[in-house]
Amino acid sequence: MNPIVWWNGAFLNPDEVNISVQDRGLLYGDGLFETLRVQSGLPIHWSRHWHRFINSAMALGFKRSFDNTTLHAAACELARKNHHETGLLRITLSRGPGPRGYSAGQANAPWILLSTYPTAAPQPGHPSAWHLRTSRWRLSSTDPLTQHKTANRLLQVLARTEAEQQGAQEALLVNEHGMAVEASSANLFWWDKNRLHTSPLEAGVLPGITRGIVLELATRHQQPIRHSLVTPGDLIRSQGAFLTLTSQGIVGVSSLDGVPLVCAPRLADWHRRVLTFRE
Amino acid sequence: MNPIVWWNGAFLNPDEVNISVQDRGLLYGDGLFETLRVQSGLPIHWSRHWHRFINSAMALGFKRSFDNTTLHAAACELARKNHHETGLLRITLSRGPGPRGYSAGQANAPWILLSTYPTAAPQPGHPSAWHLRTSRWRLSSTDPLTQHKTANRLLQVLARTEAEQQGAQEALLVNEHGMAVEASSANLFWWDKNRLHTSPLEAGVLPGITRGIVLELATRHQQPIRHSLVTPGDLIRSQGAFLTLTSQGIVGVSSLDGVPLVCAPRLADWHRRVLTFRE
Repeated sequence: MNPIVWWNGAFLNPDEVNISVQDRGLLYGDGLFETLRVQSGLPIHWSRHWHRFINSAMALGFKRSFDNTTLHAAACELARKNHHETGLLRITLSRGPGPRGYSAGQANAPWILLSTYPTAAPQPGHPSAWHLRTSRWRLSSTDPLTQHKTANRLLQVLARTEAEQQGAQEALLVNEHGMAVEASSANLFWWDKNRLHTSPLEAGVLPGITRGIVLELATRHQQPIRHSLVTPGDLIRSQGAFLTLTSQGIVGVSSLDGVPLVCAPRLADWHRRVLTFRE
Repeated sequence: MNPIVWWNGAFLNPDEVNISVQDRGLLYGDGLFETLRVQSGLPIHWSRHWHRFINSAMALGFKRSFDNTTLHAAACELARKNHHETGLLRITLSRGPGPRGYSAGQANAPWILLSTYPTAAPQPGHPSAWHLRTSRWRLSSTDPLTQHKTANRLLQVLARTEAEQQGAQEALLVNEHGMAVEASSANLFWWDKNRLHTSPLEAGVLPGITRGIVLELATRHQQPIRHSLVTPGDLIRSQGAFLTLTSQGIVGVSSLDGVPLVCAPRLADWHRRVLTFRE
C-alpha cells in the first residue's frame, strides 16, 4: 500500500490529491520545499528548516497558509500513520492554481503537501563515502534564487543524473568562475593547510541546514571554518573533503573525476557530532 | 464548463488528469513548455515551436514520448473540441513521477499535456503598448538553461508579479551586468542611431519564436538588426523600443520605470509583418 500524504489539512491517499493541470508549481516551478530527517517519529531540526522555509516563502511572496505548530503536528502524525518513524519528510509548497501567465497576482490558493519516505537512519561512526564528478551544468553565483530551496531544480536534476550515468554518486557543481559551490543535494567542506573550509554563500551556495550545524559546532568547539573559494583541482590536492546533507549527516568524498582523495581528518568525529547535535 | 485537455494521448476533463504527488515537474520543475498562438483552429509557427521544444527535450535528456504529427493533430483537435479556434495552446512536458531525489535515472514515464485558452487574436495595425518596470530579480547570463523554455520560471513569476504590483504590464529583466535582457514573457528590440537592435543570446536571452521571425524578416528586407547590449537608461534615451511575444506579435514600450519612451518607428509595419509572416 502506498504511504498516505497530508495535503492542506487532510490525510489522504496520494491518488486523492487533486493537483490542478493549472497548478503553478507544475507549470512554472512556482514553489518551495524542505527535506527533513525523521528520527523516533520526530522531524529533526524542525525549527531550522521551518525558519528557512518561512523566510523564503515571505521573500518570494507566498501567502502563508499554515502555522508552525499545525504543520509540525501534521508531520509527526503522518510519520506515525505511515510507520515511517525513521525516514525523510518532504514539505512542498506550491502557489497553487491560477490564471495562465507568469503573474501570481490572482493565485490565491497555495497548498502545502507533506510526504514521508522510509530510509535507513545514518549510523554514527560509519559515514559513507561517495565518488563525485564535476558537472558540466554550471550554477550562476549571481542567481538571486540560489539561497532559496525553490522548485526550480532542473540544473540539479541534470547534474545528478549525469554524475550517476558516469558511475558517481553525486555531482560537484561549479559556478561560472569555475569555483566549486556544492553538490546537487549537499554542501561541501574540505581541509587545506590543516584548516577546515567551506564555500561562501556568495559563490552561489544554498545555505544547507547541516552546513549551518557544522558551522555552529565549529564555533562551539572554537575550530573556526574558513569561507574560501576552491577549484576542483584544488579539491583533489586538498587534505580531504566531505559533504553535508540532511539525509546522511556527513558523507566523505572518496574521489573526484576519477582521482582518489585522501580521507578527510576526523570524519567520523564530525559525523557523530552532526548526528548528535542539539540546539 | 471547463475546457478539456489532452494528456498523453487522451482527451480528458481537467479533473480526470491524475498528476502524481511524486511528479518531477511539480517537485523539481523538471519539465519544458511551449506556448503557441492558435488561429483559424491551427497552431501558428508549429514547426518553429516544435523544433525548439524537441531540441531542448533532447539536450536535457527527456525521453521522447510523442511525434510531431501526433501532437499537431491532437492540438488541432483540442482547439476544435474546446471551440478555441482563436486563442493559445500550451504544450507542457514533465519527466513524470519517479523515486525521491534529483536523479532522473529511474523516471521512465514522461507525459505531455496540451491545454488551450481562449484569447482575442492580435489585430494588425493596432499593436498594444505596455508600461515596463525594471525588475530587481536579475537573470544570470551564464545560466546554462536560459536558452531552454523550462518549467523553472520562478524568477519570471516574481518579476512579472512585482511589475504588475507597480502598475506596469511587464517587467524588464536585466542581467548581473545591469544589461537589459528581455521581458518576463517577451524579447526586446529598440531603435538607436536609426538602427534596430536586440539583445544577443549571450546576455541570457531566451530565443523567442517571434524574435526569430523579426530577425528573419529583417534579413529578407535587408534591414539588418544589430545584437547589442543596452542598459535601462539607454533604453529610455533610445528612439523607441518594442517587445515580441507569441500571444501579441509586437507590443510597443510606452514607458520604462515611469519615464515615457518615444514611439518606436514603423511599429505598425513590424506588427503587420510579424502577424502575416509565412515561412
